[in-house]
This record gives sequence, C-alpha cells and structure tokens, in this order.
Amino acid sequence: MVTSQVVNTYPLSSYTFGTKEPKMEKDTSVADRLARMKVNYMKEGMRTSVEGILLVQEHNHPHILLLQIGNTFCKLPGGRLKPGENGMIFTWVLFFIFLPLIQFTEIDGLKRKLSSKLAANSPSLQPDWQVGECVAIWWRPNFETIMYPYCPPHITKPKECKKLFVVHLSEREYFAVPKNLKLLAVPLFELYDNVQRYGPVISTIPQQLSRFQFNMIHP
Amino acid sequence: MVTSQVVNTYPLSSYTFGTKEPKMEKDTSVADRLARMKVNYMKEGMRTSVEGILLVQEHNHPHILLLQIGNTFCKLPGGRLKPGENGMIFTWVLFFIFLPLIQFTEIDGLKRKLSSKLAANSPSLQPDWQVGECVAIWWRPNFETIMYPYCPPHITKPKECKKLFVVHLSEREYFAVPKNLKLLAVPLFELYDNVQRYGPVISTIPQQLSRFQFNMIHP
Repeated sequence: MVTSQVVNTYPLSSYTFGTKEPKMEKDTSVADRLARMKVNYMKEGMRTSVEGILLVQEHNHPHILLLQIGNTFCKLPGGRLKPGENGMIFTWVLFFIFLPLIQFTEIDGLKRKLSSKLAANSPSLQPDWQVGECVAIWWRPNFETIMYPYCPPHITKPKECKKLFVVHLSEREYFAVPKNLKLLAVPLFELYDNVQRYGPVISTIPQQLSRFQFNMIHP
Repeated sequence: MVTSQVVNTYPLSSYTFGTKEPKMEKDTSVADRLARMKVNYMKEGMRTSVEGILLVQEHNHPHILLLQIGNTFCKLPGGRLKPGENGMIFTWVLFFIFLPLIQFTEIDGLKRKLSSKLAANSPSLQPDWQVGECVAIWWRPNFETIMYPYCPPHITKPKECKKLFVVHLSEREYFAVPKNLKLLAVPLFELYDNVQRYGPVISTIPQQLSRFQFNMIHP
C-alpha cells in the first residue's frame, strides 16, 4: 500500500486502450439490484465494496477514469469483496490488531476487481495496480439507494460499506475495456458540484483529493 | 503533528466553556473583506489560511465545533497565517525539501489562531492543540467568494489557499469563547448535504472525515 501526499499523474496519451468481452451488469434495474443485495446480506452479512480512483492528466489538470454504462450512468472501477476478503471473520477486538491485515485483503480485493474491469485477459498484461490511501468511506443504512459518508445514528446494522482508494498509475499501461462499457477521463472541474450527473459519491471526489499534491509529469 | 486514522472523541460534557472579550470581524461586509484581501495580496502575495476541525461526540455521533456570528453565519476556528508562517519564502524546488518544515509552521500558525479564538487569556489555560492531518485544501482563484477544492486550470496566481486540519482534543479542556460569538457542536448529519446553510467548505466535512474511524470514548 502506497501512502503519499504526492500523486504522480501522466498524460492520458501515455496509456493504451483496447477492448475485451462485455462485463454485463448483474441486474437490469435498481429494484433488482436492491433485492439481490438483500438476498446476499441474509447469506453473507454486510457487503463491502472497494473502488479505485485512477488518475491521469490533461492540460495540467487531474482527470479520473470512469466507466460509463449506456449513455448516462458512470461508475468507478471496483466492486464487491468476496466474503472473507473484508476480514470481517474477526471479532471487533481482533479487528484493531488485524487492521493492517484487513487493509491488505481489501487492497488485494480491489486489485482483483480492477483487473476484472480493466486488465487484458493475459496475465502478462496486468497493470501494476499501486493502491494508495483510502480517501472516503460511504455507508448504506438500508436496502435503498441512499448512502452517507458516516454510519447514521441508530443504525447498528448497515447493509453496505463502500471504500474508495487512490490508485497510483505507472507511466505506461495497457487497459482492456469491456465492450459494453466506455472508459472516460473526466476532469475534476467537471465532477465538482455536479451531483445531478455523477451522484453524491463521485461528485465529491475533488474534495477528497484536494489534500493531495498532483505532480504532473510530462514524459 | 498527529497522523492517525483513529480519532478519539469525548462527550461535549467533558469540556468547559467560558467567555472572553469579543473578537470582532475585521470587515463589516463581503465587499469590504474582498477589498481588504486585494490590498493584502498586493503587499504579501497569496493568502494562506488554516482552520481546525475540532471533534466531540453526542449520542455516539461525531459533532464538530463551529463559531456562529450573529444568527446565521458559521465558521471553523482558524484564520490567516502571517507572512512567512506559510513558508512561501522558499522557492518551489526548496519547497519539496522543506515540506515538513512548512507543515510545522502552518501547524504552529493554526495553534496560534485556535488559541486566539478559543483559549482563555491565561497561558496556563491553553488547550493542548494536537493538530492532525490536513483533510482538505480549497483555492480562491479570484477576489471573489467562490472557492474550489483544486486550483482551476489556467489559474496561475490563486489569491488564497485554505487548509483544513483535524484537531484531536484531549479528554478535558477549557474553552473561552469571544462574547460576540457562539460555539456550536454540530453533528455530521446536519452538515451533510446542507450547502445552503453551511456553504461548500463546511458542508463537505463529513465526506472529508469519512475515512477516519471515530473512537467514541465515554469516560
């Protein structure tokens, strides 16, 4: 895990983009998604998901990579951890002792998800995912779409915990984008104050990243 | 400087509050404030201000301490650094070398400002200000009220840089609040998504703090 206040960013043109087989959404509607979440919760308890903020630059301004589904909905690359990957088999007392271990498994889970969404199928073409700091944690108190950047008072059994991590990209990488998705580089100034288009989680990424210093590298 | 993902919070009732002489605002209108900012910019260059996020708890939910002026406007305790306190006498190359030193002077400046706003006049009653991580940086591109959580593209001479730091409070402290101000403990759920009441900087503090784990201590 990389913990640094400085994030090196390279131009979008440093990276090469190909395509791969489609990765279809598991659900065709929000209602289906929430219903599946409920079934999984009964089996496995709270869902933990991890998402990566991949940074590039254009015109000396940081951009993040978003996956676009259809013409409107955008999401960060990432997804749900497998049971056990979030380390929640430990009790809370052990939680503090094993905190580094839990972060390790979460980060491994994020790397697995990033490869599933953005890496070519060949093992030799896997990007060097350098996962950095966790910059935000969002909580879903109920089987509903609304999430909060804190666990609301009186909620003892949240249904999902979503963690966002900075991912430090190397100077050159090959990304394979599923054919049903588009990969967009969106500038911070487009995300900022744009909850209508990007939702509450993605639209406040500029605030989460504001404490970092972006080192714009022009190879 | 304290860097920890865990923030111990104590009940509001742990703290004792008194009053002290009024600390009047230097300006009586937004226009006056921006005009004074312009004059200072000509003399001293970019303004750097530092503000503290002081955390307490009520009903197992984190609250932050805000100073209220009149009946509406709320602000974080803090203020403008003195010229030199922001370390900008260094050139940019030296900036990287002296980064720890600059943070040191910024943190000293924040402690000075916190004492000016919230400490009793007696040196023996100074709170133990344990300044933690910088959680957000906001930029003012022009002599206007609008600020952004990044330096906007094409802005080479921002007029102000405002840094927000977590402040870890000890279990017991005595705060002296200027008579013209009220000190409020505002829950994160009240700040969240409430830009109308608290403005863009304070209303996104819950997102900035979401990655921290709050350890609610009940003495």
